[in-house]
Parts: sequence; structure tokens; C-alpha cells
Amino acid sequence: MIDALPLPFVFHSRAGESTLRRARLEDADAVIALLADDAISATRGDVASPDDRPLYVAACERVLAAAGNDLLVIELDGIVVGTLQLTVVPGMARRGALRLLVEAVRVNRTLRSSGIGSAAMRWVTGAAAPALGVAMVQLTSDATRTDAHRFYENLGFEASHLGFKFVVSSGQNATA
Amino acid sequence: MIDALPLPFVFHSRAGESTLRRARLEDADAVIALLADDAISATRGDVASPDDRPLYVAACERVLAAAGNDLLVIELDGIVVGTLQLTVVPGMARRGALRLLVEAVRVNRTLRSSGIGSAAMRWVTGAAAPALGVAMVQLTSDATRTDAHRFYENLGFEASHLGFKFVVSSGQNATA
Repeated sequence: MIDALPLPFVFHSRAGESTLRRARLEDADAVIALLADDAISATRGDVASPDDRPLYVAACERVLAAAGNDLLVIELDGIVVGTLQLTVVPGMARRGALRLLVEAVRVNRTLRSSGIGSAAMRWVTGAAAPALGVAMVQLTSDATRTDAHRFYENLGFEASHLGFKFVVSSGQNATA
Repeated sequence: MIDALPLPFVFHSRAGESTLRRARLEDADAVIALLADDAISATRGDVASPDDRPLYVAACERVLAAAGNDLLVIELDGIVVGTLQLTVVPGMARRGALRLLVEAVRVNRTLRSSGIGSAAMRWVTGAAAPALGVAMVQLTSDATRTDAHRFYENLGFEASHLGFKFVVSSGQNATA
């Protein structure tokens, strides 16, 4: 959990009034469904298999329990339609600046271009980041997600870096 | 601090026997010098100004105190010649996998291509990552650092993503 986040955040978009709030354990299934509803994520094993549910639930507990980490959901008419994850990263570079890492941003595909995702990300850069005193917000986006790249550039993000990933063959999928 | 890291790690390279170990507060000045000895970092404010020293020392304390975060240095003949920073990131994606984020990798410019940096990064992917049970190691590299890109690709990293950064105008340089 990240204590200083100004949550919940109620906002309006073309889809109606929505609420960005901290996830609860009961939201795990909705987040699993959002992760699986994505062609690229499916190739990485996020297929909402019932067998994997304990892994996700454990991960949800782990994120919510870890200082400096948070899992958020966007609720519209009582239904979870979006999610994102935040990690505060302390560091030496940029004169000892704190950074805020954003991971796993997903919005229900029927609500893309509704303004829900951009409202949530504007809250990250304009409200969460100043509240936490971070000097930078950063994220990576799969090189093939050109729609997402335009989305982040429209929000003021700059694609100044390459994102390198190394898949660990012995990775235990966090069962440890 | 990240308890499970298999440190210290003693290794040999063309430069001689080196040790990768957790940083101590006394290493802050050496890390500040490594960050400043870089044309790109200098444009981001890392110029080793004495005025900034308290910011860096506070950041060093913060990294070493934060669960899931660590600042490491590489020592050769009693001198700190390299540094890198690690953050364990829990998450829902990839079946609830843990990730390991690497930031601020620097090696003294006189020791580039000595094998010191690659030995340290092979320890990250081959020893630290399995010890932590992470499924992926990730980092971003400035798009203009073509030598660094080759370095990471030779180590098995794939430049599969774009790295987006948003500079927060009200960023307080972590004095909070």
C-alpha cells in the first residue's frame, strides 16, 4: 500500500461517473479478467485459467501488503472496468529523486477512448505524483502497442527510452 | 535492503578480482561521482555539486532502508568502480509474477569493456533473480545509449518495449 495516495478519486468521463480506488482482495477476479482480455498479455500466460487463480490472489495480497506498492481499480456503475499498479522507487539518480513506476494499465476494451484511462493517468501524473513527491513517472509499453504509445504521448509522456526485458527461465511465478 | 540477495559476489574480469556488495553510506560519494561521470546524466542534474550531497545521502539511506530495494557497488582494489540499483516489484501480470527492476547501472569509464559490468549483470539475471524467485528482470536505457543497448542485448535482454517518462514539474527531488 502507498499511504499518501489521494484516493478515492471520483471523476467524470463520456462513460459517466467513475471511481478510482485501491483494490480489495475481492477485486482479484475482475483484475484477472482485465489482464486476460488482451492479446499480448495472453501470450504471456494471462489467460484467466482457474488453475492460476491462487497465484493471482497471492499476488494481489502481496501488492497490497508491500510498502510503496499499490493496486488500483476503476469502478463504473459498481463494476471494475480498469486497473493499474504503482510502485514507488527510491534511487540515487537525478539528485536522489523518487520515481513512480506504473505497471499493468488495463481498461475494459468496450471503454477504450471513453476518457476513463486518460483520467486515471492524469490523476497519476497530476495528483498522485505530487502527493508522493516523485520527480518522475515511468512505464514501459510493448513496442507493438502503437495505440498505447499515442495514448501516453498525448498525456505528456516521452518515449525517451528503450525497455529491456530478460525472462528468467527459473522464474517461479511468485509462488515463493 | 533485499535480504535474499546472494552477496557479496566475488568475480574475476580482465580488470582483476572485483567484489559486488551492498553499498554503505560511506559509498555515497563514489556513487555520486559515477552518476556525474556521464554526459546524459549530467543533463538531468547529476553533476556532483556539493550542494546536492545531502539529497544523495538521504536517497542512499532511503534505498538501503526500503524493503525490496537495494543499492550495490562494485569494488576493485578497494575502490568503488561501479554501481547499480535493484527494486523488487510485485504485480498481477504474468500470473502474479515478481519482477526485478534495475536502475542506474554505471561503471567507471576507464573500465568499460573490461567485463566488470557484464559480470555484475550476469549475477543479476543468473543469481539474484533466481534467489528472489522473480520471473523477469527489466530496465530501461536512454534511446541514445546505443553502446548500452548492445551490452544488454549481449546479456540476453530483449528491447521489446518503449520506455515512457513523465517529468513531474513539482517534483521535490525527494527532500520529503
